[in-house]
Amino acid sequence: MYDLIIIGAGPAGLTASIYASRYKLNHLIIGKIPGGLVLEAHKVENYPGFRQISGMELMQKIQEHAEDFRIKVKTDEVVRIEKKPQRTPKSRFAPTGQAILLGEEENSEFEVITRANEKYKTKSIILALGTQRKKLNVPGEEKFLGRGVSYCAICDAMFFKNKVVAVVGQGAVGVEAALVLEKHAQKVYLIYRNIEQESKKVLEEIKDILKTELILDIKVMEVKGEQKVERIILDKEYKGSKELEVQGLFIEIGSVPAIGLARQIGVEVDGQNCIKIDSGGATNVPGVYAAGDITTGSNKLRQIITAAAEGAVAVTSVYKYLKSEAHK
Amino acid sequence: MYDLIIIGAGPAGLTASIYASRYKLNHLIIGKIPGGLVLEAHKVENYPGFRQISGMELMQKIQEHAEDFRIKVKTDEVVRIEKKPQRTPKSRFAPTGQAILLGEEENSEFEVITRANEKYKTKSIILALGTQRKKLNVPGEEKFLGRGVSYCAICDAMFFKNKVVAVVGQGAVGVEAALVLEKHAQKVYLIYRNIEQESKKVLEEIKDILKTELILDIKVMEVKGEQKVERIILDKEYKGSKELEVQGLFIEIGSVPAIGLARQIGVEVDGQNCIKIDSGGATNVPGVYAAGDITTGSNKLRQIITAAAEGAVAVTSVYKYLKSEAHK
Repeated sequence: MYDLIIIGAGPAGLTASIYASRYKLNHLIIGKIPGGLVLEAHKVENYPGFRQISGMELMQKIQEHAEDFRIKVKTDEVVRIEKKPQRTPKSRFAPTGQAILLGEEENSEFEVITRANEKYKTKSIILALGTQRKKLNVPGEEKFLGRGVSYCAICDAMFFKNKVVAVVGQGAVGVEAALVLEKHAQKVYLIYRNIEQESKKVLEEIKDILKTELILDIKVMEVKGEQKVERIILDKEYKGSKELEVQGLFIEIGSVPAIGLARQIGVEVDGQNCIKIDSGGATNVPGVYAAGDITTGSNKLRQIITAAAEGAVAVTSVYKYLKSEAHK
Repeated sequence: MYDLIIIGAGPAGLTASIYASRYKLNHLIIGKIPGGLVLEAHKVENYPGFRQISGMELMQKIQEHAEDFRIKVKTDEVVRIEKKPQRTPKSRFAPTGQAILLGEEENSEFEVITRANEKYKTKSIILALGTQRKKLNVPGEEKFLGRGVSYCAICDAMFFKNKVVAVVGQGAVGVEAALVLEKHAQKVYLIYRNIEQESKKVLEEIKDILKTELILDIKVMEVKGEQKVERIILDKEYKGSKELEVQGLFIEIGSVPAIGLARQIGVEVDGQNCIKIDSGGATNVPGVYAAGDITTGSNKLRQIITAAAEGAVAVTSVYKYLKSEAHK
């Protein structure tokens, strides 16, 4: 039985682990990709103390820092959380030595099940899963993931040297992806499904340096190919055809909080699917805390420094929670 | 006229400056001691990314990071802030080209006056002054400051090699100061005015390693000497005398938020004198924001990482405030 399981190993989760070690909490940290989304950042210039560092190098340092306390990040994915409310008898001893039952106390116990089918029991949980990429939800998208379909231009651009690729973009992230891909690919198409205010502004600012071919007001309906992506199907004709031959499709339409697990145990979210937390990182479910980009915290400023701070705050609350009567 | 003046140059202020530079705000950062209280930390092990670093080295790195954007921290002390509500006419142009007065808009402008008698005008302020040492408020305390009286054992212990010193302590900070001084001084007295729960617990844990002489339930009433501290006067006799010969007096009784400036402009504080902020770091006074140990933020967890995060959040709110109608 762990005191705490931290789910997610980005800046929030790893900082929570550093502080959990300092509080001597018997804990586990499980992350699909230790380092999280920051790994994708080519350059980080806004984490105080490092004037310029790659996302990968920064997260390595933070992970080493966490593992310095003899905690090893488990590279695995939590697929299910089960909540087991415990009704424990609450009693006191009479002067005669006889136990007098005062009633029952409710406190939670959780079981965490991973993709590798490991099961862990814990008294508390910190959800630090960050955000996940938005999907197009079109046929072929999932089938060709890793075989031409990618959600991260910065991570995968180098695999498309001299190839023809398309980016489905939204706002600034689409343009940023195209700028990265231009350096590697032979040809880049940037497709905007609809051109809302933010995208318009970004494209206006960038149009003189962008070598990419813009395709506006057109949707990608399907991804096709044999073993790998060979073409995409559009909803309207572009240059006389509804088919566009590409070897790569980058889907860069933003990200959403990864709240699948939170939903399983009844954690409340706001209108933008961010986990609602109080000033101490507590959710509405006793024993469940959250930190980082997945939450409503830090005025929703999503930065490495704010995620890390939320991790420290949440684990301090866990420490107080475990010290409280219910767990003595 | 600056967009923003940041008062205080600890982790919160310096991070605010890093982000202000990224938002291209024309700003100034003024701090009495660039680096703030962290400088006093012998070892920092809880700032993610640095497994172990001295407080001084960490703050040098963060200051260099801030100054990388061609912003130089001004080493000076703000002694006064004046708020000048501006009533600016709000008008629109009629089709004829004639201006039609619609009313007035209120927005604030501030003048910041320093000890060096410099005056700066600004549209907004971030208060990041952290905490300041609690004083004993006894005769001689101020007179002998820097001449035997100190509020920081870690900073000044080395100046008392082979001297006799007394620490007035409270809770763990008193014991920590004594432990540092033992390594330098010939003799250390640790004086607790009253021995409350927290101090009792700490002393119990530490009593076997402490070489210091404990004086309990006695108050220091006065500090005396010619040029430097020569003796302290106690409220009761200790070993037959109300005088104790010491060359140094360390006052280590905790710290309180530095809210003197905040009070001048009507900024609200809570019962523990922490500046009340909303989730974006805004105070009750338009144009005035706060970050770090001086605030109610981060669930009052006072850490380098949380102070830095609050700095980033506050300046993001300043950026939005300045972009809003009132300042266009």
